[in-house]
Amino acid sequence: MSGFFITFEGGEGSGKTTQINRLSKSLAEQGHKVVTTREPGGTEEAEKIRDLLVQNKGGAWTPLAEVMLFSAARAMHVEKVIAPALDDGRIVICDRFTDSTMAYQGYGFGTDKGVIEQLNTLSTSGLQPNLTVLLNIDPEAGLGRAGRRMASEKMAVEQREDRYEQLNLDFHTRIRDGFLDIAKQNPERCVVIPADQDMDLLAEQILEAVSERLG
Amino acid sequence: MSGFFITFEGGEGSGKTTQINRLSKSLAEQGHKVVTTREPGGTEEAEKIRDLLVQNKGGAWTPLAEVMLFSAARAMHVEKVIAPALDDGRIVICDRFTDSTMAYQGYGFGTDKGVIEQLNTLSTSGLQPNLTVLLNIDPEAGLGRAGRRMASEKMAVEQREDRYEQLNLDFHTRIRDGFLDIAKQNPERCVVIPADQDMDLLAEQILEAVSERLG
Repeated sequence: MSGFFITFEGGEGSGKTTQINRLSKSLAEQGHKVVTTREPGGTEEAEKIRDLLVQNKGGAWTPLAEVMLFSAARAMHVEKVIAPALDDGRIVICDRFTDSTMAYQGYGFGTDKGVIEQLNTLSTSGLQPNLTVLLNIDPEAGLGRAGRRMASEKMAVEQREDRYEQLNLDFHTRIRDGFLDIAKQNPERCVVIPADQDMDLLAEQILEAVSERLG
Repeated sequence: MSGFFITFEGGEGSGKTTQINRLSKSLAEQGHKVVTTREPGGTEEAEKIRDLLVQNKGGAWTPLAEVMLFSAARAMHVEKVIAPALDDGRIVICDRFTDSTMAYQGYGFGTDKGVIEQLNTLSTSGLQPNLTVLLNIDPEAGLGRAGRRMASEKMAVEQREDRYEQLNLDFHTRIRDGFLDIAKQNPERCVVIPADQDMDLLAEQILEAVSERLG
């Protein structure tokens, strides 16, 4: 594969979406062909799984079934979107990937990490990001931001895509610690950037980290 | 677990449904508490996955995503239905289980058998049937039966649950050979019974095989 695969990870309110848009714009301005995508989802079929998962349309999934649904969506996404774009020499920027499954389902909900590891490997056929940008934010500050965003967008509770935002601070602290753990275990792939800072400065730091790796 | 777990496997038109109903009735008459269920499905949530899969509502799944969806449905089914019923001392009779995934997706569609094996183990948390009744039928005869059943039920193509019936004879021959392979590899768990015979005789043979194992 001749492309470059970047994932963004982080807790609620870490500003991933904004920063992905900015990075994508900057890289496109430099002449790169960029594809942005997100998980769970990214294909028409996987979006149906996303519906079952995040809007809770499917009922109460068991933790294992939930990870398997994420994995099914990811398998589609990798095979149909990410791998072909990388083969085509593009930079693929993905909002959440395997690390989110490990952080939320493993560290957050306590699903067996070994099982998640196996499913992450199976669903990606071993594909790993060239670079993972972990936007690190204090859970309390992040939840405050996410809450304000939802309030300003006047979303009804049933329309809120992210049910995780309604869980407690302990849960979000486990997620944050989980992400940091993962970054520690994968120092070559992961770069941890403090997210609670000026958006422009943050965008610069991210672009710098990406440019270093792109060479 | 104090119960007894029986799965029925076999190709199209092998008569599983009829024989499951008869066995269930016979065992209930002997005083056993019997639960019958089916895959993919068996829980409200898993039935939604079934909809995505068998009625092709989800679009064109990749082979790996398909196996993962089956696995997600199975994980729910095992945890919410099968394991609790076994814990409660019941006889659980399930129409299709892990062997169907291996036969159809592995032998039929050529999905990596090692990956299917891993997913089968993960989705069941290692639970295996005490007895698997494989109804063995010549694919051509089975397809003839299945076709007549669908015609007599006047089903429109889009209502037909089993898209496999529209695939060719080669495919169904691979499935049949796959099931026989699996039975050969698991002689203690599997009993192969010729399905192309009188229904009453078949029911007797099945009840005998079950009674032997139940002790």
